[in-house]
Amino acid sequence: MDSGTTVDTEALVELALEDALSRLLDINTPPTLARCMRGALFPGGARIRPRLLWAVADACSHERPVAVGMAAAAVEFLHCASLVQDDMSCFDAADTRRANPTLHRVYGPGLALLASDALIVGSLELLAMADPQDASLGVAMVCSLARHSGARGGITAGQAWESESEVDVSTYHAAKTGSLFEAAVELGALCGGAEAKAWSSTGRRIGAAYQVVDDLIDVLGADARRDKPVGVDAALGRPNIVNELGVDGARARLVELIDAVLESLPECPAPNLLRARILEETNRWLPAGVHRSAA
Amino acid sequence: MDSGTTVDTEALVELALEDALSRLLDINTPPTLARCMRGALFPGGARIRPRLLWAVADACSHERPVAVGMAAAAVEFLHCASLVQDDMSCFDAADTRRANPTLHRVYGPGLALLASDALIVGSLELLAMADPQDASLGVAMVCSLARHSGARGGITAGQAWESESEVDVSTYHAAKTGSLFEAAVELGALCGGAEAKAWSSTGRRIGAAYQVVDDLIDVLGADARRDKPVGVDAALGRPNIVNELGVDGARARLVELIDAVLESLPECPAPNLLRARILEETNRWLPAGVHRSAA
Repeated sequence: MDSGTTVDTEALVELALEDALSRLLDINTPPTLARCMRGALFPGGARIRPRLLWAVADACSHERPVAVGMAAAAVEFLHCASLVQDDMSCFDAADTRRANPTLHRVYGPGLALLASDALIVGSLELLAMADPQDASLGVAMVCSLARHSGARGGITAGQAWESESEVDVSTYHAAKTGSLFEAAVELGALCGGAEAKAWSSTGRRIGAAYQVVDDLIDVLGADARRDKPVGVDAALGRPNIVNELGVDGARARLVELIDAVLESLPECPAPNLLRARILEETNRWLPAGVHRSAA
Repeated sequence: MDSGTTVDTEALVELALEDALSRLLDINTPPTLARCMRGALFPGGARIRPRLLWAVADACSHERPVAVGMAAAAVEFLHCASLVQDDMSCFDAADTRRANPTLHRVYGPGLALLASDALIVGSLELLAMADPQDASLGVAMVCSLARHSGARGGITAGQAWESESEVDVSTYHAAKTGSLFEAAVELGALCGGAEAKAWSSTGRRIGAAYQVVDDLIDVLGADARRDKPVGVDAALGRPNIVNELGVDGARARLVELIDAVLESLPECPAPNLLRARILEETNRWLPAGVHRSAA
């Protein structure tokens, strides 16, 4: 089980997303709304949150693949809904996303907004019905994802901090970026029968590390599968750690944060697989000379 | 218990809304977002959905007032979030709501959208945590409200039908207006220990009756506590039953629908209170000469 080899969950995630979307649509779904929801999800980006969720569930030796798939889809649905809204004219007014025209340009802002609504409520419905034999799991997962999406430091709060004149940058980043990573890790742990609370700080730390990656990409550019175009932070006057520490300093911070994650992983049956996946992700954003490897 | 006298739940609903809102805000909530969320909820309209939910829960002799209050708040939060979005420029571009400037005019479209997001995810979180002793109730309530808000004939689907070239009017109304009444009735029943399914058709019928009231108000006008300004259907080319049947015909249809509701109420411990409340609501929209009374 815990050989340290990385299992590629990419195909599993895509299947889980298709399955989950089909559960949220039926004959009472207006066809254009269904197309717009699909357009929000496919083609995807790096699917980093659902893959992380799956890795944590695997580390906890879960025994319910259907529930893990639905939870992985839920966290990606929430993320994609937030991207649809970010692209709208009241925020970034973006014309393209992942090399395609943005949804509000293709379908108009009304349908784009409705598609994001349907994905948001759908994500929580998926969690509630993830395991019909275990209502406690459903309730715990809904509470986790809803909390990390809402006004108490969730992604909604994160976006709203941009409208305040005084903002603490780490509070802003923890809410806007970190909260959904915390949710992904908590949901994976819950599917594996662990307590969400034991895994929260791991999720927060991974979110903080991802924020550094995100800031590096904003300055340096990266492969086209990433969700974020280049230079947006500077154009919109958003804080970026590379401006503060430089590229090498930001990479050093990334290594520090990842080391802290790896050193403080909660006890679980199969930690090596998770360690390997975290290192694999991290190494993508580091020059070859400073690649990390499992101890 | 079932004396037939109507208990005024108006004050209870306002208290429940205040309590529920306070659960969704904390030190990590950006202050302007919190004000905007409050502005979406207060001052309120007729609070017809939460009062209906409470009446059904009372009819089912519930024994958990806190859960009923949280469910009542949840359905009103969802409704108010939908009104915030309806008012935005991608839909009705409304300048006022309940005699106040609309949220997107006061706070800008970005914050209005984020407030609606926070209320939507918050409504489902409230349901998940409504009764910490009963996870099955939480899961059933999340599934009910999420379904009636989403793409499978929920309010999101209802709004999206307006973008389709071919729409069945009753499908449109059932989704846009009826679905949240169905949710309110189902949530009330669930809090009272009944099965949601047994009460669904009652909810659908009450929703259809409310649609007639809504159409009457759109043509005739009504008191200022109502959520809807006059003449919007005609201005936006939306279907309205008064155009089809005339005012007297629409009122006759309302009476028919309400009679069908009252004749087919599911078995419950205290139906007379619910009957009295439904008649009281209905009579507001009928001329004195045709007021209905309990048999």
